[in-house]
Amino acid sequence: MATSAPASEYPASTHSPRYLTGDGAGIREFIDKFDVFLFDCDGVLWSGDHVFPGTNETLEMLRSKGKQVVFVTNNSTKSRADYNKKLTSLGIPSTTEEIFSSSYSASIYISRILTLPPTKRKVFVIGETGIEQELQSENVPFIGGTDPSYRRDITPEDYKAIAAGSSDLLDPEVGVVLVGLDFHINYFKLALAYHYIRRGAVFLATNIDSTLPNSGTLFPGAGSMSAPLIMMLGKEPVSLGKPNQAMMDAIEGKFRFDRSRACMVGDRVNTDIRFGIEGRLGGTLGVLTGVSSKEEFVGGEVRPSVYLDKLADLLECE
Amino acid sequence: MATSAPASEYPASTHSPRYLTGDGAGIREFIDKFDVFLFDCDGVLWSGDHVFPGTNETLEMLRSKGKQVVFVTNNSTKSRADYNKKLTSLGIPSTTEEIFSSSYSASIYISRILTLPPTKRKVFVIGETGIEQELQSENVPFIGGTDPSYRRDITPEDYKAIAAGSSDLLDPEVGVVLVGLDFHINYFKLALAYHYIRRGAVFLATNIDSTLPNSGTLFPGAGSMSAPLIMMLGKEPVSLGKPNQAMMDAIEGKFRFDRSRACMVGDRVNTDIRFGIEGRLGGTLGVLTGVSSKEEFVGGEVRPSVYLDKLADLLECE
Repeated sequence: MATSAPASEYPASTHSPRYLTGDGAGIREFIDKFDVFLFDCDGVLWSGDHVFPGTNETLEMLRSKGKQVVFVTNNSTKSRADYNKKLTSLGIPSTTEEIFSSSYSASIYISRILTLPPTKRKVFVIGETGIEQELQSENVPFIGGTDPSYRRDITPEDYKAIAAGSSDLLDPEVGVVLVGLDFHINYFKLALAYHYIRRGAVFLATNIDSTLPNSGTLFPGAGSMSAPLIMMLGKEPVSLGKPNQAMMDAIEGKFRFDRSRACMVGDRVNTDIRFGIEGRLGGTLGVLTGVSSKEEFVGGEVRPSVYLDKLADLLECE
Repeated sequence: MATSAPASEYPASTHSPRYLTGDGAGIREFIDKFDVFLFDCDGVLWSGDHVFPGTNETLEMLRSKGKQVVFVTNNSTKSRADYNKKLTSLGIPSTTEEIFSSSYSASIYISRILTLPPTKRKVFVIGETGIEQELQSENVPFIGGTDPSYRRDITPEDYKAIAAGSSDLLDPEVGVVLVGLDFHINYFKLALAYHYIRRGAVFLATNIDSTLPNSGTLFPGAGSMSAPLIMMLGKEPVSLGKPNQAMMDAIEGKFRFDRSRACMVGDRVNTDIRFGIEGRLGGTLGVLTGVSSKEEFVGGEVRPSVYLDKLADLLECE
């Protein structure tokens, strides 16, 4: 469907994006063009633990108009159920079915898209419980992850056993290495992941964001877990998070929508807006409550179809 | 001196390297041109725990002719004293003074070349005892390294404290982050290193080899420890190991030799031979007992002045 979608009415990056704040008629017209709204979360719906005023009312307004709402997150440490709890704890009404995370995206990719030999269906996980839960939800067998037996130092015996390809350390059924954010990353896990990939395992990443926002600053992100492997192997993983289109394909596969009637909403041009444009969605909506600035929206290489000061400005349609 | 050194009699990469095995007169002539021989170790003197036949006799022959012998290693986990013990355990006569390691190179660079404000002289170390011992030998204060208090998980309080720049976690005297091979790498250390560098600390690496040979295969190397930081920061560290010329400058600073009368001996064109050529040494000698092949020596972009089947072929001069 990606290749057959009609050209957007708001062609990207060759236009000046329309500024819709204060333009009730323009907002009404924009909303009417879409059946589905894909939302980036942090920087759009909230920042840290602070929900922006009007977030709930805006989501409610869209739902009342029959729009499908999807929350799209690159956060791999939480499962969809965990993420739904987070939304609920922030007071945002949502269901697990409305949530699409990079760990879920990766699990779908492994279970439904990758063609693995029957003897190579196991996944070696670098990551936290979010990945494990989503792999379980797709009945994908895995090792590693939060298993405490992987939280140890490498030993002289390990080097020899790994070099010899011992099945004590290298499970012969592993056909995929999936790397997400792992707060317990260590040398031993990196060594195993490297050798699995050298022995033929598919190299996947939930997402490749180098950093993770927390407490108003940045910390190592999922991409930083893949970085040593990328350097050692000289190759990149297939990333199942924004802006990689494997994630868009997985979202479309689940929600079965017409891309020309879908809009991506986000605060970052290089991930969210790019994700929508490369996915040939009917439109992209930038908001100025996050990372990207008005200057980027208006004059950057990647530009949204329209932009608003804040998401709640959509309520001006009423 | 690097810029004023005369052009090599064996100009690199525009010539066909001379093959000297079996050419006693050619070998004698070659040896006579040099006062100093810099040796890469693994792949030249030994492989793993196997010392090549004739290694000791060759070193003895060179010493008997009054040549200075220097062992140059990118291994940052061992101090020079440790490395000397390793040579001794392999039966190779050596002194600590003949050894030049990337951790020593980095320590010299910090103590004698970097100009740090008096209040910013402390080093945050990602690495093992080799780095710590060499920093101590140059009286450079440091934190991190093998200190067990850094071998723990990150906590929710850590995020807040790091974001606030708390001196409980971020020592205000740290002006350098030095990254070497760390078998105890973890998320907490990477987060601290990232924030020190963001706050202005100089980003140094003992070396940037992505892999480490062990047991006949490869494991994560020092470069893999820097990789997450490079991805997060969008910048490379200054590397103090081969083939970076900061290491050659440090070697020359210590041994005070005439570069035109020095020869680099190694098995790898991209590190050892390149190191000697870019350092404008009088010559480079490739041996076929390690990584690079005859085809690379003869037809690659980086070519040694001369090459031998094995180091011990130098004994044919007698």
